[in-house]
Amino acid sequence: MSEAPHLTFDSDMPGVSRGHLVVPGGADRGELSLPVFSLNRGEGPRLLVTGGNHGNELEGPLVARRLIEWLPEAQTCGRVIVLPMLNPLAVQAWSRNTPLDGLNLNRVFPGRAGGSVTERIADAVSRILLPMADTVFDLHSFGPTWDFPPAATTHPIADLDLMARTVRMAEAFKLPLTLVWEYNDTVGMFDIVAQNQGKVFVCAEFGGGTVGADNLAIYEAGVRNALIALGLVEGKAEYPTFRQQKSGQTLETHPSDELKSPAPGIFEPRASVLDEVKQGDLIGILHPMDSLSVESIDIRAPGTAIVFAIRSGGHVGVNEWVAAVARPLRLECH
Amino acid sequence: MSEAPHLTFDSDMPGVSRGHLVVPGGADRGELSLPVFSLNRGEGPRLLVTGGNHGNELEGPLVARRLIEWLPEAQTCGRVIVLPMLNPLAVQAWSRNTPLDGLNLNRVFPGRAGGSVTERIADAVSRILLPMADTVFDLHSFGPTWDFPPAATTHPIADLDLMARTVRMAEAFKLPLTLVWEYNDTVGMFDIVAQNQGKVFVCAEFGGGTVGADNLAIYEAGVRNALIALGLVEGKAEYPTFRQQKSGQTLETHPSDELKSPAPGIFEPRASVLDEVKQGDLIGILHPMDSLSVESIDIRAPGTAIVFAIRSGGHVGVNEWVAAVARPLRLECH
Repeated sequence: MSEAPHLTFDSDMPGVSRGHLVVPGGADRGELSLPVFSLNRGEGPRLLVTGGNHGNELEGPLVARRLIEWLPEAQTCGRVIVLPMLNPLAVQAWSRNTPLDGLNLNRVFPGRAGGSVTERIADAVSRILLPMADTVFDLHSFGPTWDFPPAATTHPIADLDLMARTVRMAEAFKLPLTLVWEYNDTVGMFDIVAQNQGKVFVCAEFGGGTVGADNLAIYEAGVRNALIALGLVEGKAEYPTFRQQKSGQTLETHPSDELKSPAPGIFEPRASVLDEVKQGDLIGILHPMDSLSVESIDIRAPGTAIVFAIRSGGHVGVNEWVAAVARPLRLECH
Repeated sequence: MSEAPHLTFDSDMPGVSRGHLVVPGGADRGELSLPVFSLNRGEGPRLLVTGGNHGNELEGPLVARRLIEWLPEAQTCGRVIVLPMLNPLAVQAWSRNTPLDGLNLNRVFPGRAGGSVTERIADAVSRILLPMADTVFDLHSFGPTWDFPPAATTHPIADLDLMARTVRMAEAFKLPLTLVWEYNDTVGMFDIVAQNQGKVFVCAEFGGGTVGADNLAIYEAGVRNALIALGLVEGKAEYPTFRQQKSGQTLETHPSDELKSPAPGIFEPRASVLDEVKQGDLIGILHPMDSLSVESIDIRAPGTAIVFAIRSGGHVGVNEWVAAVARPLRLECH
């Protein structure tokens, strides 16, 4: 009954194609059609741009839509495939995970053909779209309860040559932050699957909270800069202006750089992203809310570092992340 | 088995008291204890400050906590009661409504003693705390999928004298926006119940999206300004700086000022809050996401007005709000 995942158009056709990636139905729901844009200008880089991996991160789908508007005028060579909304079920629910099966799409790659709908989406993307690209940009945001600067990120990669090429690609976005993020919970992530196939994969982490006109312009500029660096479009790459500055820095962060909540309560940020802090500087305050007789607890910087992520007022449990810091990247010689 | 709602301390005692408002248990769960702070300096205004009416609006609880810190040094007369978290069940879930019964606390006032937990909270607040106050500040935010300027708001009030006093109290916050909001869905709101008892009730709508250190400072300054105007604390009220400006304006808005989505899709904001727009100016773009062949739809200003609320990148259904505008308030003579 369920056919194999497929595109509704021939991506080898020259020029613009618009259609869908068809994700077959399964036990939990029927077939799903994900809108896809493709522009084939022959020889050159092969790029896949995806958004909406998590449903409450909407900058990516919006930047992907803008890209589709100007790419037909701008692209001079190569192939670009754009899938603005990897997980429409989660986007429509403004939910990180898919409501139907509760799964986080970015933890089930490469997916499973006979699995639940989230696993079938990952399977269709892994089998149909991923082989068509050498480079992947997955456009995320940091989610609504965090403040986060416009950033291009990667996890550390064992293949040091691929690592160096990935960091250079991330830096080509010319965003305020390029981040190499050592993170323990990476099983099933889209980037790991792509990197294992030797592809350059950059995860853009775009802000958090309010999706505003100014921020979208920065995100769009970052993606345009990366397309210029790839040679897909012409133009001059420039740092966008973020908080009165036009600059970028490349940092690394490790699990030990996460600041955790010492108790349940509401976290109040007292620092902003990209602030430089020294040991003992106040980053935020944890307010236990069960009793007004209990003292609030200061969260202070463990050492000299740069704040790159800060919780923006969520209620947190004990030992949950409230902030994270980073330091300048030192790439190992090889 | 279930006792009546009560305070765990005697609010007539002079000076600082800390304790709880006890909400009796019911069929759905046991007793709930809401932390309460009270400061009695004798004769003078009687103020109730509440936060956390909606669980994903966390500026209010944070500003309430700050207030509790400096009030013992600052308050010179009168009585102030602070309840930072009206609905801890919703705050802990970062949810607008109470997860247990699905109810919106701000639509069930004055509550019901034998009802579900949300109704019991409203009942306890209405019966125990509301009679202790002549003035109420309920500290809201506009929620995580909207951009909204720091504002003090009220709905129109039939009693024109109370209306004038309420608008003056709202303006005393000296926030960028004072708003008289004609709104159809007001049954069961906290302010309606308080106003029906002749009390001055101001609903502070504080931002939306990321709860940052800068915004919290503005919100705190607004509440301090209002306390100065009431004569509860000494000091000079000043407009806080918001987007490089120190000023405020008083506007009114009607149901016809709501801009609705013409189709399902993702709304992209192209204007910012407090922007002045003329008829035909672009406010945002609605992107249908089911197909990339369908044109995006421009949302334009219906006339000369000021944008005061703009959706920040949510997926919306047809006919859902995406923005709202307002015009300078004209108070009717009486």
